Amino acid sequence: MYTIEKTSAAIEHLEQLRNIVGAPYVFIDEEVLNQYASDETEDLHFLPDIVIKPANAEEISRILKLCNEFRIPVTPRGAGTGLSGGALPNLGGVLLSIERLNKIISIDERNLQVITEPGVITEVLQDAVKERGLFYPPDPSSRGSCMIGGNIAENSGGPKAVKYGVVKDYVLNLEVVLPTGEIMWTGANVLKNATGYNLTQLMVGSEGTLGIVTKAVLKLIPLPKYDLLMLVPFKNAENACAAVSSIFTAGYTPSAMEFMERDALEWVMRFVDNSIVPIDDDIQAHLLIEVDGNDVEVLMKDMEGISEIVMGFDCGEILFAEDAQQKAELWKLRRRVGEAVKSHSIYKEEDTVVPRAELPALLKGVKEIGKKYGFHSVCYGHAGDGNLHVNIIKGELSDEQWKGSLKTGIREIFELVKQLGGTISGEHGIGLVQKEYLPIVFDDMQMHLMRQIKKVFDPHNILNAGKIFDA
Amino acid sequence: MYTIEKTSAAIEHLEQLRNIVGAPYVFIDEEVLNQYASDETEDLHFLPDIVIKPANAEEISRILKLCNEFRIPVTPRGAGTGLSGGALPNLGGVLLSIERLNKIISIDERNLQVITEPGVITEVLQDAVKERGLFYPPDPSSRGSCMIGGNIAENSGGPKAVKYGVVKDYVLNLEVVLPTGEIMWTGANVLKNATGYNLTQLMVGSEGTLGIVTKAVLKLIPLPKYDLLMLVPFKNAENACAAVSSIFTAGYTPSAMEFMERDALEWVMRFVDNSIVPIDDDIQAHLLIEVDGNDVEVLMKDMEGISEIVMGFDCGEILFAEDAQQKAELWKLRRRVGEAVKSHSIYKEEDTVVPRAELPALLKGVKEIGKKYGFHSVCYGHAGDGNLHVNIIKGELSDEQWKGSLKTGIREIFELVKQLGGTISGEHGIGLVQKEYLPIVFDDMQMHLMRQIKKVFDPHNILNAGKIFDA
Repeated sequence: MYTIEKTSAAIEHLEQLRNIVGAPYVFIDEEVLNQYASDETEDLHFLPDIVIKPANAEEISRILKLCNEFRIPVTPRGAGTGLSGGALPNLGGVLLSIERLNKIISIDERNLQVITEPGVITEVLQDAVKERGLFYPPDPSSRGSCMIGGNIAENSGGPKAVKYGVVKDYVLNLEVVLPTGEIMWTGANVLKNATGYNLTQLMVGSEGTLGIVTKAVLKLIPLPKYDLLMLVPFKNAENACAAVSSIFTAGYTPSAMEFMERDALEWVMRFVDNSIVPIDDDIQAHLLIEVDGNDVEVLMKDMEGISEIVMGFDCGEILFAEDAQQKAELWKLRRRVGEAVKSHSIYKEEDTVVPRAELPALLKGVKEIGKKYGFHSVCYGHAGDGNLHVNIIKGELSDEQWKGSLKTGIREIFELVKQLGGTISGEHGIGLVQKEYLPIVFDDMQMHLMRQIKKVFDPHNILNAGKIFDA
Repeated sequence: MYTIEKTSAAIEHLEQLRNIVGAPYVFIDEEVLNQYASDETEDLHFLPDIVIKPANAEEISRILKLCNEFRIPVTPRGAGTGLSGGALPNLGGVLLSIERLNKIISIDERNLQVITEPGVITEVLQDAVKERGLFYPPDPSSRGSCMIGGNIAENSGGPKAVKYGVVKDYVLNLEVVLPTGEIMWTGANVLKNATGYNLTQLMVGSEGTLGIVTKAVLKLIPLPKYDLLMLVPFKNAENACAAVSSIFTAGYTPSAMEFMERDALEWVMRFVDNSIVPIDDDIQAHLLIEVDGNDVEVLMKDMEGISEIVMGFDCGEILFAEDAQQKAELWKLRRRVGEAVKSHSIYKEEDTVVPRAELPALLKGVKEIGKKYGFHSVCYGHAGDGNLHVNIIKGELSDEQWKGSLKTGIREIFELVKQLGGTISGEHGIGLVQKEYLPIVFDDMQMHLMRQIKKVFDPHNILNAGKIFDA
């Protein structure tokens, strides 16, 4: 569906690339190329001409200068866990993996900051700062394999975002290599900054189209001492969604507030061992609710208060996690839903987000649109943020429907999202697969400004070209 | 010092401007022009040719289209409380006041959001949402007179930023009029957004150079039920600064952590009535520390823990505010320090910010530089954020020193800030008076990118031209 303008220019400059990073870090054999041809987005596959694994900003700078001069497409890639195709080498050319930039440079306990390279696995970074009593909250479900650099590129969220914010709220300063090869810091290592345009925030979420992050200064916070977790079953999925905003308007700020439709939980329970969650026949959805803080009595009171609220929404018996193991088990269920759904069927995942009180209307609308176009959807996500992942299952749909009329259905979902005050991606990005829908939420002027900004940073459109929008 | 290219083009189009907003809202009499010739920055004064007070985005759009066509400089202005000269009509032309866009459009209690026009006074907005049990934390000391639009333009902070973040952390979506007259929303009304470049964050802190905000969707949080306040005197100012980072590394997150040098407190005590704070002769600085939350016992424990820490830094007797009145009195002292210093002498205020553990080194350096260049400085500010306002007092300095050699001293302060990992403005912006120092923290590439971004939004450089940088 996407035009691949295969380039041989990359191959012509193979020797120069080998000179920059060393021959062992340049790959052209099909086995390696194939490993970097897909990410976690649908079943898409694009072969790069070359895979290159530089060691540092200087090497990346030299690679980009070369590619900029000879107009060779460059696709930067973290762990390849993205869900919008941002790391797919859609134009062939050079696939630039950041996996060797994998060092945590320093943890500054006095200033509650960490300086890290982008190829560090998110969970590795979290564990390293946790050892010092510190906390880096943003972690996508893929935290065990995704990388900080990819998280920054997509402005990732994860379950803690509802209380602690997303990646953009933790990025203080970035070292980036621009598409033209210059190495630049975007800001300063400070909590407040009113010095010029916010280049740091322009870079966060720009999906590797404006530069390649080579160092990140991230804010840390003190690690909360305690957390409590409950799983609440609901007989009606819209009721579960409606409970969400009631909890917040009552003054509670849970540290996680996750929604799972019945199918999501059932499928993941076939996928991972589970000994603690029964699903009664009349249960249509669950909320997984966590509170955290430094005073366990306060948390107990919060759990009581929240329990009283959800009981007003016709819920079933609440499961309170009794110990660390039960908590881990419940979180495993939630974190592996995506994988379980993927293993169940070919699917398309839409990353809708609306103001949180509009969740019931969104869920209802998604199901109605599904009925109209004959598709089944499984919904789950970060309900506290109004962020609902809508997984459309291929199931019995023909290839023609899947590639054709389904698009009209997806378009209607996004139009509904827009109408509810929301937008088409909360944390996955636009990448390759959502760009055709971007004009639903942006008008010509917004698209023009973004294209012009891209041009300022990348005059020859070599870096992750064709992502977010076509130049 | 700044070149004024007075324009008569504004006057030539007087009739057209009157047609757009109505004659009663266009002013050319000197008395009104004079009211808009200064803000709170030093003693600077620039007369605009015309003052215009539009009522809405449509009128602003028509004004900007006209001014864009005829290359008439436009300076947008909120309440004129800025401290970097951002609202000064340095090129004459049209001074566009947003004061008539002063309605709170809606408070959405279900989604914890407020939609407001930019001319609403910050404290008015805070009070309006407080009545619904909600909280909008960012408030500069001038909250009783400054406007939301100006706060967004400068990415303002205020005392609560240390726990709750600055303006950028509360802006979800903006309606802006671009310099070319287009009216555009920057994002969506959602808590998470990974949809295209972050135009919202590019607009926040851009000091009215990229567009004029006409509506803002701001995030609210539940209002904390309780707060406790203490004033801690220190015998040594550097010790006070050192205590700051120790409190955070011990795991406490106060809702305010304000530093005041002895002179600051003494001068403000001459300026406002004060019955509760004695200043012993051996006291050199104070920290004003607040904690807030929903459980008063937890807060009492926090206060105890913090007290123990500060006692390790040779502090005097701690004053715990006993009731709301005492709290108000202490906060009044802190909030009016700026005014008191200003009324004491002509001054220049530098808005330095460093990683918070570097505060003692910053304070020490500022005093040494002062000795070297013969100037006295009074320092106070948001110590928890590493944000120190350095007020340089004219005092006995000659006009030659004030306009000449002093600059070398200021430059040295900023070089020290940069060396400590900080930057030259935490919350006041660069505006007119700091732009000559911007190359200390930005290199040619950063300056180039910012200039090019400005050009994308404002091809004819009509909107707040000459602020932040010269085009």
